[in-house]
Amino acid sequence: MSLRIDRRFFLSALAAAPILPGSLFHTAAHAQAGDPLPSWNEGRTKDSILAFVAAVTREGSQSFVPARERIATFDNDGTLWVEQPMYVQLAFALDRVKALAAQHPEWTSKQPFKAALEGDLRTLAASGERGMVELIMATHASMTTAEFEKVVGDWLATARHPRFDRPYTSLVYQPMLELLAYLRANDFKTFIVSGGGIEFMRPWTERVYGVPPEQVVGSSIKTRFQMRDGRPELFRLPEINFVDDKAGKPVGINEHIGRRPIAAFGNSDGDLEMLQWTTLAGDRRRFALIVHHTDAEREYAYDRHSHFGRLDVALDAANANGWTVADMKKDWKQIFPTDAGPLGTGARAIK
Amino acid sequence: MSLRIDRRFFLSALAAAPILPGSLFHTAAHAQAGDPLPSWNEGRTKDSILAFVAAVTREGSQSFVPARERIATFDNDGTLWVEQPMYVQLAFALDRVKALAAQHPEWTSKQPFKAALEGDLRTLAASGERGMVELIMATHASMTTAEFEKVVGDWLATARHPRFDRPYTSLVYQPMLELLAYLRANDFKTFIVSGGGIEFMRPWTERVYGVPPEQVVGSSIKTRFQMRDGRPELFRLPEINFVDDKAGKPVGINEHIGRRPIAAFGNSDGDLEMLQWTTLAGDRRRFALIVHHTDAEREYAYDRHSHFGRLDVALDAANANGWTVADMKKDWKQIFPTDAGPLGTGARAIK
Repeated sequence: MSLRIDRRFFLSALAAAPILPGSLFHTAAHAQAGDPLPSWNEGRTKDSILAFVAAVTREGSQSFVPARERIATFDNDGTLWVEQPMYVQLAFALDRVKALAAQHPEWTSKQPFKAALEGDLRTLAASGERGMVELIMATHASMTTAEFEKVVGDWLATARHPRFDRPYTSLVYQPMLELLAYLRANDFKTFIVSGGGIEFMRPWTERVYGVPPEQVVGSSIKTRFQMRDGRPELFRLPEINFVDDKAGKPVGINEHIGRRPIAAFGNSDGDLEMLQWTTLAGDRRRFALIVHHTDAEREYAYDRHSHFGRLDVALDAANANGWTVADMKKDWKQIFPTDAGPLGTGARAIK
Repeated sequence: MSLRIDRRFFLSALAAAPILPGSLFHTAAHAQAGDPLPSWNEGRTKDSILAFVAAVTREGSQSFVPARERIATFDNDGTLWVEQPMYVQLAFALDRVKALAAQHPEWTSKQPFKAALEGDLRTLAASGERGMVELIMATHASMTTAEFEKVVGDWLATARHPRFDRPYTSLVYQPMLELLAYLRANDFKTFIVSGGGIEFMRPWTERVYGVPPEQVVGSSIKTRFQMRDGRPELFRLPEINFVDDKAGKPVGINEHIGRRPIAAFGNSDGDLEMLQWTTLAGDRRRFALIVHHTDAEREYAYDRHSHFGRLDVALDAANANGWTVADMKKDWKQIFPTDAGPLGTGARAIK
């Protein structure tokens, strides 16, 4: 499959409902009593995290950082949840095209919709940026924020990952849930900074990650305020507002947070500039970590040649800048939470 | 003077330094022990605030709102600090034109800069939207965010209000400082949602209001990420990004916060849509308050015909929708904090 789809296209949303059977991040919080990172194997990676947190929280030390400045930013796709075999939001868009097809008979002969309906990802990819924007606008816009929230919520409640046969929101990484909880226990404020749609993430990030909507930064489409029958609403316009990817991530961080993070976590070239912005100011101790997907058996193995979540330039930059690289296969004792239902074909390696 | 300058033009910024001799919001916090709102006179206005907070914090009651959903948004100019005789940020822009004039000899004969240099506000206003944008772009852009932060910080450290002879950041409203502290003491998260420049406010809002940078929403210009000599920086472009005023306020609230506030505070028609968005969803108990400037003696008296902070449509809407209107003269025992130096000509009424 040669689906070369740039992160620039996965924009906006709002999903509503309780997605998970249980709240996963509570599981992580329970682990805090003893080892705060029980799903991380002992070794240099885990040590680098613990050493950084110890350093910035040690009052009176040179490396101490006041609690209000302890900002940590996390990419989402591939850093906190699965992004293979395609971005979850793309799977949503493709399903949405199918759901809307009856109202759009012209789609059976019009690209890129024809390709989306036929599952022809090669042709879809060939439709390029313009095709992708058409697809997103047709599936993500021209409704109110409340309506979109419901659409996304309904989809997430029933959609299943093709390999693991689990709801997407349960395919989050247990070690990262523990890391989020560990940082918060040390008075960090944790933010998501994702190329994904801000309104596609917000409704479930608090329940799943413990990250409230106001701490989610993402790509967005424009909205328009209007009064309808005496009720105020925001209408989603088929127009890109902001692409929170690559060089857009520092811009989004500055716009939403207004402080430079002291720690950042990513997994792909889309996170390069966020990690640079976070760590290279030259003023104080800071931390960056890249999740390297090396485990085809338990999850996926990909880096320099992947269509989604390509990790190439940022992997070289990690070596040059002393960023920590977490080797999923070696560093993670467990990939997914155990309490969220069957992993289905989890043992079957699909590359 | 007929300066009709739309809020749409006052964009962006970052100021740095400790502005105030003492941290004013601590003063407010100290008052919490007894009456949480000591600078508010007894009466219907104060009662309406106390009753709302009691209702949403009463566990088990129908009106109870969980702490994480207790979002309160505050306009800044005219709601938290003085906006007469002109927006503080406009005073900054005019001073900035003077400071930069030596590098721009052409400005002595080019509008709107000539008018700005000559203090000719009438001609300045006549230059319209285009003139205002030129002025803002010439004074707020084409430098890094760090450089702009320093420029704003230096200005705020020395600039004085023409009537009160105090630093602008000490001309904040004591009753509103108490209100911010009171809401936070009741587990509200307080946000600023201002038409003013987001980076003009962020560096001092935490110290002055207790509102951290990540809880400030405002207008902005675009920035570009770049690496220079191995250091990452954000460069401010002469291009408007977002205007957080009027119908832009609900859009900014949704983009930055992602939850609908349960309480909102404003003082002008620029806040109308924010108050509508906050209160008219029809789902639960919500609160809106408008600060009505009625005190020419201690501050200013203006509403339907003011060039800055016009309050006309929103005043009618307050009556129609049951929003609380705070009458500054009647409801506020004290206007400014007492511990921030001389009020200068505070007793002289200027209309």
